[in-house]
Amino acid sequence: MDPPDLSALLRPRSVAVVGATDRPGSYGDAALCNLAALGFSGEVWGVHPTRREVHGRRCVPTLEDLPAPVDAVVVAIPAAAVPDVIGSAARIGCGAAVVFAAGFAEAGATVLQAELVSAAGAMPVLGPNCDGLVSFHGAALWGDALVPRPAGRVALISQSGNVAVNALAVGRGLSFHTVASVGNQAVLDAATLLSALVEDEQLGSVALFLESDGDGARLADALARAAERGIGVAVLKVGATAAGATAAAAHTGALAGNQRVFRALVEEAGAAWADDVHDLLELAKALAVPPARVHPSGADASGLAILTCSGGDSGLAADEAGRLGLALPPLGTATVERLRSLLPPAATTGNPLDYTAMIWGERERLAGIVEAVAADPAIDQLLLFFDEPAQMEAGLRASWDGVREGLADGAAASGIPALVASTLPDLLQHDSAAAFVARGVPAVGGLRTALACVAALRTSSADRWL
Amino acid sequence: MDPPDLSALLRPRSVAVVGATDRPGSYGDAALCNLAALGFSGEVWGVHPTRREVHGRRCVPTLEDLPAPVDAVVVAIPAAAVPDVIGSAARIGCGAAVVFAAGFAEAGATVLQAELVSAAGAMPVLGPNCDGLVSFHGAALWGDALVPRPAGRVALISQSGNVAVNALAVGRGLSFHTVASVGNQAVLDAATLLSALVEDEQLGSVALFLESDGDGARLADALARAAERGIGVAVLKVGATAAGATAAAAHTGALAGNQRVFRALVEEAGAAWADDVHDLLELAKALAVPPARVHPSGADASGLAILTCSGGDSGLAADEAGRLGLALPPLGTATVERLRSLLPPAATTGNPLDYTAMIWGERERLAGIVEAVAADPAIDQLLLFFDEPAQMEAGLRASWDGVREGLADGAAASGIPALVASTLPDLLQHDSAAAFVARGVPAVGGLRTALACVAALRTSSADRWL
Repeated sequence: MDPPDLSALLRPRSVAVVGATDRPGSYGDAALCNLAALGFSGEVWGVHPTRREVHGRRCVPTLEDLPAPVDAVVVAIPAAAVPDVIGSAARIGCGAAVVFAAGFAEAGATVLQAELVSAAGAMPVLGPNCDGLVSFHGAALWGDALVPRPAGRVALISQSGNVAVNALAVGRGLSFHTVASVGNQAVLDAATLLSALVEDEQLGSVALFLESDGDGARLADALARAAERGIGVAVLKVGATAAGATAAAAHTGALAGNQRVFRALVEEAGAAWADDVHDLLELAKALAVPPARVHPSGADASGLAILTCSGGDSGLAADEAGRLGLALPPLGTATVERLRSLLPPAATTGNPLDYTAMIWGERERLAGIVEAVAADPAIDQLLLFFDEPAQMEAGLRASWDGVREGLADGAAASGIPALVASTLPDLLQHDSAAAFVARGVPAVGGLRTALACVAALRTSSADRWL
Repeated sequence: MDPPDLSALLRPRSVAVVGATDRPGSYGDAALCNLAALGFSGEVWGVHPTRREVHGRRCVPTLEDLPAPVDAVVVAIPAAAVPDVIGSAARIGCGAAVVFAAGFAEAGATVLQAELVSAAGAMPVLGPNCDGLVSFHGAALWGDALVPRPAGRVALISQSGNVAVNALAVGRGLSFHTVASVGNQAVLDAATLLSALVEDEQLGSVALFLESDGDGARLADALARAAERGIGVAVLKVGATAAGATAAAAHTGALAGNQRVFRALVEEAGAAWADDVHDLLELAKALAVPPARVHPSGADASGLAILTCSGGDSGLAADEAGRLGLALPPLGTATVERLRSLLPPAATTGNPLDYTAMIWGERERLAGIVEAVAADPAIDQLLLFFDEPAQMEAGLRASWDGVREGLADGAAASGIPALVASTLPDLLQHDSAAAFVARGVPAVGGLRTALACVAALRTSSADRWL
């Protein structure tokens, strides 16, 4: 099945905002401000019954008054008038539409939602009851306050608008390609959006936040296509418990089926499963860096090595690895021999390896240690802990930079996938995370999340589809 | 059993640094700089064979040359010379000592460690192989780089120095009373330190990070005393898995017994158990705010209410509550009636309650909603989600402040314990966390951690000891 053409939505060259206004707090105001804030260089029109100009954009009374149909129509007016506008947009040949208004099926107005669907015909419509879509390589079609950020490789497709809003506020090296809030999925659902997004060369990974099961076959197809294209997908779905399923039903009216069946479908398609929204985003961040994914060597005894400067962190990480069933193979004799000349005398050679804080800041020595561990035939993946305070005395900066570069040098030279993580979520700083990614090493926040990412990077491999 | 008198260590009035130096990166330099940076106003001496002054502090050649014994001796010299210095300190009547140097039992030098213990006699000694102790109401006796922070109510006692170092770098409203790295526990162990600390009126809670079992009876006594004094304790112990226990053994040489037995001891004594170091610190942060702890009403049907502005967060929180076995009682008819006049028409009344983002920023209305839910006879605890970006447009600030104050007003008026949490660890900002604490409401980072804290606040009650 060919993926749907959603280019008018994902990379519009022209946009019209229906309900253009400069009233603070309104969807129409936010949509116009966001287009400017993200530096959209295409044509932008306002549609307003009486205004001739809003926020410096020319306005026309109706969509029919546009000199030519636009790619994307942003519908920022109340629910009742939406089907008519969607009908106009489809009739004149606009490419896609985004509808912010609530008050459709989620509020019991199933007839109004059916009218919207009917009016849309073949035109893709995002929403209603959504926050819109931000394409960092295209345009912001977004109805909430948005702080501009640089473009990245992670896409988020979320049934919850608030989860999308919060994700857009996360720092620590998380950079988005696209953020889409799918709302009621009246026309466009998460699976369809996913299948279109994965065709994009600039995409690295996708985080899916789902509340309802949706069309399982379409989701399986989209996940399979993502795997074929080497794009990692992380999935979090509400409804693991009866209480969660009830809460989801109250939210979108969507009923969830058996979570175990759904999870099996997702994992069978090569995607990674998350239980927590922080884990979901960090997983997607890690999956967006291709060298981070483990391509199983076939050797049963191979597995993860953990490197830290701390015995305490070693113990914690080993416990969490144990809980997740991740093997920490012992290092071979040759590795131990090689490490003896690199480690300080007080260090014990093991896996996890506590290289001790005594060599903190010694870039070359650290790189050598990372390389030595990675060269062990039993090791096929590295987890490197790196906790960096937000504030430190000037004198310490060089030392921390030395550790960061040493770990990155070692990882780059090792030829096996590596993941960097802070033990505490706070202690991953944005600039360092970006520096690691630039070297092909993703960096995530939090020890427990780090081990969950390690597990996902081992199992969510595109290989099974090739 | 009377608690040991550790006031010379915990609140010294005078300090001598043996190995005083201004060589950057050395323990002696760090110790002197930290005393100044934290504004210690007591007497400070250096001890150095030839220097007469270091960092503006007078120096004497040996401890015996001091005009009078000091409360705390900071021993910042290599291992071999330590027992002699400890012997001198004890002989002249100093109150306590801290030993940074490694190279004792953890490195196989059990004889040297025995000499240290013997030299100490009755004098309390922290370490060796530790980072020291920072009393934010007393003095920094700390051998690593330290960024000054305001004093708070949380104590951390850690067998891992690095866990303590990292904890000192966490923001988000975490303020420490004391941070102690106990190292080899040659003389002073975590349990003894705990039993002395809990006598302090300014202490709110303690986080214990343990690698070895230690003296179970002494720990049980200390935990019981903490419970009697209404001081919450959170415990994280390495060794949940075989791999973790092996890593811990490599680190401190301490062998861990059966983790389940140890956990039962801890929980029976009213302390809270953590599986992750971020959870440990957030738990302790929550336990330090006395109104946050739930005193069971005896009504079996009573339980937690969750309030959010998001259906997605509602579902996630309900799932996590379900995993932890936390009851989310349905709201009664009277509550539903009362909420109808406060909620926007689109909101569904339930637990979790999604009050929707439509009333975002309406302080009084939010406070009323929180109070209405709290007044339900089935509700005895509140979890309020609040995600705040680090950066936002100036226009939004008032709106976020309104939500924060509305939630705090409602919690304060409700008369039942409340916890605020961000769904993503990043989206708890320090100033807001501090503002919530000032209103008697702890604030923690991350949805999964928040539910773990909710559970701990329900079960780690001092009541069982009264």
